[in-house]
Amino acid sequence: MGNIINLGITRKPLSDTPSLESVLALMGDDLHRVNQLIVESMHSPVSLIPQLAGHIVASGGKRVRPLLTLAAANLCGYQGDRHIGLATCVEFIHTATLLHDDVVDESRLRRGKDSANAVWGNQSSVLVGDFLFSRAFQIMVGDGSLRVLKILSNASAVIAEGEVMQLMTTNDTETSEEAYLKVIRAKTATLFAAAASVGAVVAERPAAEEQALESFGMNLGIAFQLIDDVLDYAADEDDLGKTIGDDFREGKITLPVILAWRRGNLEERSFWQRTLEELNQTEQDLTYAKTLMKKHNSLLDTVDRARHYGAIARDSLGIFRDCPIKDALLEMVNFAVHRLN
Amino acid sequence: MGNIINLGITRKPLSDTPSLESVLALMGDDLHRVNQLIVESMHSPVSLIPQLAGHIVASGGKRVRPLLTLAAANLCGYQGDRHIGLATCVEFIHTATLLHDDVVDESRLRRGKDSANAVWGNQSSVLVGDFLFSRAFQIMVGDGSLRVLKILSNASAVIAEGEVMQLMTTNDTETSEEAYLKVIRAKTATLFAAAASVGAVVAERPAAEEQALESFGMNLGIAFQLIDDVLDYAADEDDLGKTIGDDFREGKITLPVILAWRRGNLEERSFWQRTLEELNQTEQDLTYAKTLMKKHNSLLDTVDRARHYGAIARDSLGIFRDCPIKDALLEMVNFAVHRLN
Repeated sequence: MGNIINLGITRKPLSDTPSLESVLALMGDDLHRVNQLIVESMHSPVSLIPQLAGHIVASGGKRVRPLLTLAAANLCGYQGDRHIGLATCVEFIHTATLLHDDVVDESRLRRGKDSANAVWGNQSSVLVGDFLFSRAFQIMVGDGSLRVLKILSNASAVIAEGEVMQLMTTNDTETSEEAYLKVIRAKTATLFAAAASVGAVVAERPAAEEQALESFGMNLGIAFQLIDDVLDYAADEDDLGKTIGDDFREGKITLPVILAWRRGNLEERSFWQRTLEELNQTEQDLTYAKTLMKKHNSLLDTVDRARHYGAIARDSLGIFRDCPIKDALLEMVNFAVHRLN
Repeated sequence: MGNIINLGITRKPLSDTPSLESVLALMGDDLHRVNQLIVESMHSPVSLIPQLAGHIVASGGKRVRPLLTLAAANLCGYQGDRHIGLATCVEFIHTATLLHDDVVDESRLRRGKDSANAVWGNQSSVLVGDFLFSRAFQIMVGDGSLRVLKILSNASAVIAEGEVMQLMTTNDTETSEEAYLKVIRAKTATLFAAAASVGAVVAERPAAEEQALESFGMNLGIAFQLIDDVLDYAADEDDLGKTIGDDFREGKITLPVILAWRRGNLEERSFWQRTLEELNQTEQDLTYAKTLMKKHNSLLDTVDRARHYGAIARDSLGIFRDCPIKDALLEMVNFAVHRLN
């Protein structure tokens, strides 16, 4: 059962564990079409492109963002096909970001497998990222909605700003919770928000519904990222499908660290400084980092913060009538907050 | 007068040297507005973005691509303002590509100055490139023409494909002229073609004029790139504003190399293999490379190839009536083929 138990988060029986199963049950056929379009759209006579893009696209992502577009469109009663293409765009923008992220972080692993840059080199990751990003715009242009183009091009610019912002705070243990939230809003939650709101746009729903879905996506995205941060210290490695401690080894300043640092004494702060700023780490340091997080309750309190954003996400759906897809979206929030991987 | 003389290309008296002066005389005011919009559009609360983007945008590029958009719009009798924004998009796409190129090539210099990645690191260059690319799309979306969006998003995807294609042929001395032409069409000439054709699109001119300008840009772009390749071996360093031999040191396979390799004997081919494939170079190798190029006439023949594409560009403007801006565009072709920098 792994480390999760040490945090007092007991694992529920499997059937009760929040999962993406209900949204997959409802949107699985559409997601299958998205997956097909993803494969088709990666095609290029330049063989390295489908090879490398295929590696990352197939490497076990949860497809949360395209699912969000599909489910939001469905919630808005949308009947057509456009959500398939737009969900693909959203996933491509996400994938391009991952490829560039791995270069920026010099990550060797992505979801427990060799990252694309580890296999094909940074150069290929940069360029194939550019290709996927361009391809996403081609698909959007093909869709033809300037409204959608605006939402997704704005999101892309905000994501890039967020990435640069994060780069500037990298390894700075004094980063405030405020500053950190700003980064994850920009680099993670904005694409969740865009993914959800285009669902309302294709269905030509009133602004209130678009805004509700945007808020749903934004807050779900924040919760999702915060739990990601927690899992990197607390997950069961078998559940997570990757090694824990990646953030620690890369010196990433995430909310669990920020809280532990703020609540820590001078000696503890110098530990964080040595390990995360100077990246001067020994074998035992990750264990000690987790001890400090336990002492200051910083993982559980990060989960608590995530719950807060999850609650906002949930309430933002209040204007929609009850229906199975609404339940499935609410279940996505539970999954984001209570997931083990 | 430098090496250029050794090639038999004598420098004309300054007043006769083809330059961008005539297009600048006609489009200078518009270019000034483009430069203003470039500065405004780089703005971001994340200060590293305008710093880094400003460094590269201000680092002495010739603004050939935005000039092409401005001049093409003018040739088509366009009266409005939209060409200013679109010229800015074109320059941003170009700048984003340069930033990513420098990361891919691990270049330390760009136009004789420290490249952005040398100053701020690869990570910043990747991310600020992403930002500029997204910002370009935001400006295009603001323009609101799906036709323009289609041209520029297609161009972006082709550019990225070209970059990956180039990466796959890097350091391969057996690259064919055909394969090389394919790469430079994709990674350089396509943006020239797009830059010129959007000029016709904003002016709402018939397809024939759009196609003529697209062909003009494409062939001008090929000529421009081929002369770039020549100048890297032959320029007067004072004219070029950068050190010569950069392509050689990076092991780039360009047309002068391809021709020298194809025309060389086994011993010469093993020289190219050692220096460009294995990047095992000594002080004297650049001089010897230039000797081989002289022996096989490969620089002058590359200029000849460039002239060929220049001639096609020139003829593609045949459908437009004579006027000062048409003369200025024809002069751009002369500049591309005969320039010293």
